[in-house]
Amino acid sequence: MVSTLANTSTDWLSAQPPRGFSRYTSSMPAIPVDLSIQARWIVPMTLRGQVLEEHAVIVQDGRVLDVLPCADARRKYAPAAEALRPVHALLPGLVNADTRAARSLFRGSAALIPPPARSQRLQQLERRYAGSDFVRDGALLSIAQMLKGGTTCFADRHSFPPETAAAAAEQGMRAVIGMPVADAPTAWAQTAAEHLTKALKVRDEYKGHPLISTCFAPLTALLSDATFARIATLAAELDAGVCIDLHDSAGAIAQSRARFGLRPIERLESFGLLTPSLTAVHMVCVDEADIARAQRGGVAVCLCPEADLRRGNGPPPIAALAAAGLRLCLGSGGAQGDQSPWNAVKLTALLSRTGAGAADPLGCWDVLAAATRGGASALGLEGEIGTLEAGKWADLCCVDLSAPAMQPVFEPLDPLVFSGSRDMVTDVWIAGRQLLAGSQLTRLDWPGVAARADAWARRIIAEG
Amino acid sequence: MVSTLANTSTDWLSAQPPRGFSRYTSSMPAIPVDLSIQARWIVPMTLRGQVLEEHAVIVQDGRVLDVLPCADARRKYAPAAEALRPVHALLPGLVNADTRAARSLFRGSAALIPPPARSQRLQQLERRYAGSDFVRDGALLSIAQMLKGGTTCFADRHSFPPETAAAAAEQGMRAVIGMPVADAPTAWAQTAAEHLTKALKVRDEYKGHPLISTCFAPLTALLSDATFARIATLAAELDAGVCIDLHDSAGAIAQSRARFGLRPIERLESFGLLTPSLTAVHMVCVDEADIARAQRGGVAVCLCPEADLRRGNGPPPIAALAAAGLRLCLGSGGAQGDQSPWNAVKLTALLSRTGAGAADPLGCWDVLAAATRGGASALGLEGEIGTLEAGKWADLCCVDLSAPAMQPVFEPLDPLVFSGSRDMVTDVWIAGRQLLAGSQLTRLDWPGVAARADAWARRIIAEG
Repeated sequence: MVSTLANTSTDWLSAQPPRGFSRYTSSMPAIPVDLSIQARWIVPMTLRGQVLEEHAVIVQDGRVLDVLPCADARRKYAPAAEALRPVHALLPGLVNADTRAARSLFRGSAALIPPPARSQRLQQLERRYAGSDFVRDGALLSIAQMLKGGTTCFADRHSFPPETAAAAAEQGMRAVIGMPVADAPTAWAQTAAEHLTKALKVRDEYKGHPLISTCFAPLTALLSDATFARIATLAAELDAGVCIDLHDSAGAIAQSRARFGLRPIERLESFGLLTPSLTAVHMVCVDEADIARAQRGGVAVCLCPEADLRRGNGPPPIAALAAAGLRLCLGSGGAQGDQSPWNAVKLTALLSRTGAGAADPLGCWDVLAAATRGGASALGLEGEIGTLEAGKWADLCCVDLSAPAMQPVFEPLDPLVFSGSRDMVTDVWIAGRQLLAGSQLTRLDWPGVAARADAWARRIIAEG
Repeated sequence: MVSTLANTSTDWLSAQPPRGFSRYTSSMPAIPVDLSIQARWIVPMTLRGQVLEEHAVIVQDGRVLDVLPCADARRKYAPAAEALRPVHALLPGLVNADTRAARSLFRGSAALIPPPARSQRLQQLERRYAGSDFVRDGALLSIAQMLKGGTTCFADRHSFPPETAAAAAEQGMRAVIGMPVADAPTAWAQTAAEHLTKALKVRDEYKGHPLISTCFAPLTALLSDATFARIATLAAELDAGVCIDLHDSAGAIAQSRARFGLRPIERLESFGLLTPSLTAVHMVCVDEADIARAQRGGVAVCLCPEADLRRGNGPPPIAALAAAGLRLCLGSGGAQGDQSPWNAVKLTALLSRTGAGAADPLGCWDVLAAATRGGASALGLEGEIGTLEAGKWADLCCVDLSAPAMQPVFEPLDPLVFSGSRDMVTDVWIAGRQLLAGSQLTRLDWPGVAARADAWARRIIAEG
């Protein structure tokens, strides 16, 4: 959008300095900008493996205006506000490319129930409690948790999309809200047609919104042919994303084969849904043909290793998916964990080394790329977020690397990936607005959110 | 060691209250004790699944004197110091049953080198730098990291055991120091005989020490028959523990078969080393016969899931090992990670659900048991630490469950296991001495330790 000079008054440009004299002198009028953040390390995520030292990110009107050495930044810009982060790494805000934010309120509620009965219990809780108040309170809880961990954008799929969208917008959080599509009645709509009509309405409502966008979120890969065909048409017409659980378990594949004679990914292909706008979530139970299909379609894959392991489905074949050149992004895959993006980052790095065969494990930069620009790309926001470069939104995460757990720091990528944790995140900016400062939430009313979460937990316990 | 009454003056006992009147009244003289810690939840790890609410742990002379309801504690004891932890869980300190503490100084040093060359690089660094100063500085760094995460006891295996033992003793940290045994020269000794002689000397030196004990740590499962036979004899005579990497990779098994015609665990069995005093570390590549051998011998298994995954060896078959009734404990398996015990806790819980077949995954309490009493048992300290009960050392870890990431808290075990993180640890006591308070190290000179770690890193970088 902007180059570093295009946006500025040109008055001083005509005042050419004498030959051999630096253009940037202390007498040169500095360019007024909103914010300059100087950090020990900056990981722009634009060039593979690149780590800048002693650089600054300049923010103007909510967007990145420049990334340049601190010394140059001090000469060139006159920031209204400055953030000095001498032992920190600054990187693009992390993207949680798949969650169900409201379900954070159920976290641990079925902890003592063994796995098969546990998911039934969670479904029962969902039917009983998930209404608009619940979804709003749960979304706010998840937003608090995600901000504390350095997440600046999340993709949600739950039954009350307007509530989640409103909660995110009100908190200044970036979100891609999945519009549930089902053939059977849900809490949100009765028929496939009604689901889609409501989806289009919410989509229109947030058209042009700086923070909120939407995508289609088919509730299952077992939807009817007619509904998938309709989603494919709408997604193509509107250039909208589609986000769906795909091959998360052997059971899901067996059901599809029994009912339709096809594996889920074959069915999606038959509807023309395997496109770069599709985010296939999980992709745990995949064979070479499945991966080849995903590759041909250019789909994005959202890895949710924590959720996969927690449900006993095993890890996705991360190295093989990466070796196929699939665009990878990371998600919490639900809100049963603590929603810290560092869980998925670390698990992805570790699990990419397992069962890899000939495939190389992911390097640290590659994992961080999946967690940032990969998420942006999967969610159709690659022009807006995911890297630190001029013109993109200033969605930033700043991480203190001075904690004992991190020492010594030879370079920042390995500690970020393998020792990264929610507690080291000091600052979060979204569209240039600081939502976490000194590791504290600046805007979200945490005591209120915590009290409502506690009240829901008490009610769930009391009602058995 | 003590019952709640045996240790006290008996004066007041003769003053019988009238019948029907409670023995504990406010007028009853209270028993003076060193410390009372009242917590929202206490997980004594004595009874499976038990969580006490609003209880207190009473500490006297470095040991647990009593665990009882807060209301009773207030009547019965007059503590010199009180710790009120209203939103916290108090549990036995965590045991890192396998690490190489000094290697924390190499963490990340080979981060950008791909895996096969990386381990060569780490060995090269080890040869070049590991001397007594290095081991001391690295051990102190690891001790700081472990204390911050709630670890109160670690088992170390490195080449300069006296330095690690001294560092732990000086810091008030509990440690079991592995005495390296090798046939070939190491930095510690030239021959097997010299290794063993030095081992016995260190063992004698710490005899009766309240914090430090030792075990034998054969450097590899490829030691000569004569050396293994000697270790077996000494271990039996001295009732000493033996700690060894076992079946960590397919390569380790292949080498043993090529050289001796036996799998490593078969060799150990032939020397009579498969006993309850043996801790088999890793146990990743194991078949049913291996597990049956371990089971017959009653050996303890130390799971190091993070190290196993990081090295590309894959996860151990946790559920199968647990189903065989093996005593499980957890370790960081080196100091390449951040040494937070919560990493191993969470990974163990998650990975126990993978490839389990018919075996049940570990429940949250079981995982915490492995991290506490399991470690104590493997290290021969089951009578001293690992649970909160009268007579054991007051090695305690207190965890704040009020962080946003933990909400809502239906019960404490699931959040501890799945959302546990070093940042929530507020207090650590070892033998009743508080080494972490308000999440800050009370005794260890962190600025000094950090400066020396930084100096080593700079030197390693400068010398390439």
